[in-house]
Amino acid sequence: MTLADSIDASTATQSTGEDVSVVMADIGRRARAAAAILAQASSEAKDIALRGAAAAIRANAEPILDANARDLDAAKAKGLRDSLIDRLLLDADRLESVAAGLEAIADLPDPVGTVMAEWSRPNGLGFQRVRTPLGVIGIIYEARPNVTADAGGLCLKAGNAAILRGGSESFHSSRAIIDALHAGLRNAGLPVDAILQVPTTDRAAVSALLTMPEYIDVIVPRGGRSLIERVQNESRVPVFAHLEGLCHVYLDRAADPDKAVAIAVNAKMRRTSVCGAAETLLVDRAVAAELLPRVATALSDAGCALRGDEAARALVPSMDAANEEDWSTEYLDAILSVAVVDGVDGAIAHIGRWGSHHTDSIVTENTDTAERFLAEVDSAIVLHNASTQFADGGEFGMGAEIGISTGRLHARGPVGTEQLTSFKYLVRGNGQTRP
Amino acid sequence: MTLADSIDASTATQSTGEDVSVVMADIGRRARAAAAILAQASSEAKDIALRGAAAAIRANAEPILDANARDLDAAKAKGLRDSLIDRLLLDADRLESVAAGLEAIADLPDPVGTVMAEWSRPNGLGFQRVRTPLGVIGIIYEARPNVTADAGGLCLKAGNAAILRGGSESFHSSRAIIDALHAGLRNAGLPVDAILQVPTTDRAAVSALLTMPEYIDVIVPRGGRSLIERVQNESRVPVFAHLEGLCHVYLDRAADPDKAVAIAVNAKMRRTSVCGAAETLLVDRAVAAELLPRVATALSDAGCALRGDEAARALVPSMDAANEEDWSTEYLDAILSVAVVDGVDGAIAHIGRWGSHHTDSIVTENTDTAERFLAEVDSAIVLHNASTQFADGGEFGMGAEIGISTGRLHARGPVGTEQLTSFKYLVRGNGQTRP
Repeated sequence: MTLADSIDASTATQSTGEDVSVVMADIGRRARAAAAILAQASSEAKDIALRGAAAAIRANAEPILDANARDLDAAKAKGLRDSLIDRLLLDADRLESVAAGLEAIADLPDPVGTVMAEWSRPNGLGFQRVRTPLGVIGIIYEARPNVTADAGGLCLKAGNAAILRGGSESFHSSRAIIDALHAGLRNAGLPVDAILQVPTTDRAAVSALLTMPEYIDVIVPRGGRSLIERVQNESRVPVFAHLEGLCHVYLDRAADPDKAVAIAVNAKMRRTSVCGAAETLLVDRAVAAELLPRVATALSDAGCALRGDEAARALVPSMDAANEEDWSTEYLDAILSVAVVDGVDGAIAHIGRWGSHHTDSIVTENTDTAERFLAEVDSAIVLHNASTQFADGGEFGMGAEIGISTGRLHARGPVGTEQLTSFKYLVRGNGQTRP
Repeated sequence: MTLADSIDASTATQSTGEDVSVVMADIGRRARAAAAILAQASSEAKDIALRGAAAAIRANAEPILDANARDLDAAKAKGLRDSLIDRLLLDADRLESVAAGLEAIADLPDPVGTVMAEWSRPNGLGFQRVRTPLGVIGIIYEARPNVTADAGGLCLKAGNAAILRGGSESFHSSRAIIDALHAGLRNAGLPVDAILQVPTTDRAAVSALLTMPEYIDVIVPRGGRSLIERVQNESRVPVFAHLEGLCHVYLDRAADPDKAVAIAVNAKMRRTSVCGAAETLLVDRAVAAELLPRVATALSDAGCALRGDEAARALVPSMDAANEEDWSTEYLDAILSVAVVDGVDGAIAHIGRWGSHHTDSIVTENTDTAERFLAEVDSAIVLHNASTQFADGGEFGMGAEIGISTGRLHARGPVGTEQLTSFKYLVRGNGQTRP
């Protein structure tokens, strides 16, 4: 009996490092083998698997919710925070949206095989650049059972095998959802090893994931700063970094005041817990005296606490004082730091110094100023006269996404099915040799 | 006086690890600052810099050749192999082609700012995906002075700062060429820190390059397997891997015999030292008896030594015996390993087991068989009825390249100016907030 077999679903065990590396190498080998089959799978087969998984989730709602109840009991006994409990919670509605999410992924176009570019050369050679799967993707994420289905489904759609390592508090919920994903794969005649759950909650399993470049092609970490830093320090496998979203809204001297108020309030308060929520408001000194009090009142009325620099507090004395740490804090809460800056140059400099290359927005009616901001702010997403809360693959029209990458390599911005692919060159000739 | 200043061009020093890390951090900071300026530089300014560098190379031919003579003397005294001496050697013709290469890069289109995709959404938001520079690129390469100009020029064209670490035997030649690149940058009003040479031949400098993710965005290693493996093991910075080219030519049962001969001979013998040179010939068992003797004779006549498996030697007894190591050996010489395989499935399996995901070719008149090979061989470049020696950015119509990437992330195949860019999303609205 292997360790993997010995882990009973009711007792996710802590095991020794050596055991873990054996288990993980086995997982890696199985995923690699499944990836080779999945890479050649038809769009039809993958979509049958996704729809079958959705059906299995609906058919198995009871055991999935039972598994979730077990996770919830343990989490409550451990005294987990309410916001984390809420992320962990599944109910009939949430489970239905997990199933519907898988069907929505099935409805997306298959990126694999898409011809990205096509040309020929004077010697008659025909060239195509064609999308291919990436291979095996390791995903490390929080205790959110819905991510198990989303991430597994997106990887499957793009022809990749996935190794999923969700937060330990969601272990049984994730396992139950993976059972449904496996039912879908079986239904389509695809290998169940295409979606594998790390079979232990031992943290050593994460280290193993990060050091198996022979089995894993890319790691997608989702989570807080400490997880991301650990992954970036330890990983021998390439990483699609999903850093925090230190998003800025800059109100320029040429801002339309009504748009400024609407965008500042929406960017911060629509949902404070998403990575595209604004964390810092920058206001042009040239209009701060007239604009900032009005914007501050609207934010306060919406329930937002403000922390300002000296110049901001001189205009809105009710603000708390911001210290340097505030400029680099992702509150994910109804708190906003506020700085007065010297025009667009000051805004670009502030974002360059403190931003996380995620999403930033300028509010201005001056197109030249807007274009400078768009060109010079080095972030995955830069907006003009729109809320930072549009930082979302669905809002981009890309469909579901695993997250927003803040790195510059391969995937930047929303990571959806296309970003989970690679490509290769196909060259067709009729006997050409090189002179 | 810093260590960097203290390194006289006549005596590239070995220095202590600590000194090196101080020097390298300084190099990294300067490159990062230059990259921010370069990212906003106009196409005109970059092209003026490239043409100015070409002019400076021509104007300074004498000091560059003097520096090269010093490197050559030292290399000969060290007893360097003739093939390596030849790579190191500059003369008037080679220097002219280095200068012309920089002008050819100037003639390429500027990738930065190119709109890769554009769309809008029902809410009126307009989206653009626009190419941006990657940032700072560290390039570790052999003692080839021409690569200093090619790599520096390509990085500059794509708006990136480059940190160049060539083989220590070419230190003075590279430094003299970098002086010319700096003259071009100065001429264009661009920061000379945009192209920096690692100012020491100490191997600790390579370790420093690999562990400065805060200053370097990607490492491009060129060289033998041991360098690539060291880089992949040590690097905390993403790597565009340029593994060896274990390229295959597969002669299918439906191969046109004339094409088979021409492609096999060209793929191996046109130039044996390039990464796109074939290293293994696979022959379909169904036609081996008629085809292999003819192909083997043509290869032998062209001066190629053959090492065959048992079945191949049964047909061509003059072949040496191949052992298992031959299937994974990049000879870069007039040697070819030969295996008889069971049709296209056997060829795909052999390449999957032994290939390096670089470049592989099938010779067949059967389109279905060809398409299966193109789809199932997991290599950067897969050809039908054409020589593997077309694995070259110039032959693809992409212009100059740093090398052929065998990785699946970001850059795969020829790495030219486009592959040295990233992208970002620009979103233009008129006050949109997210419901």
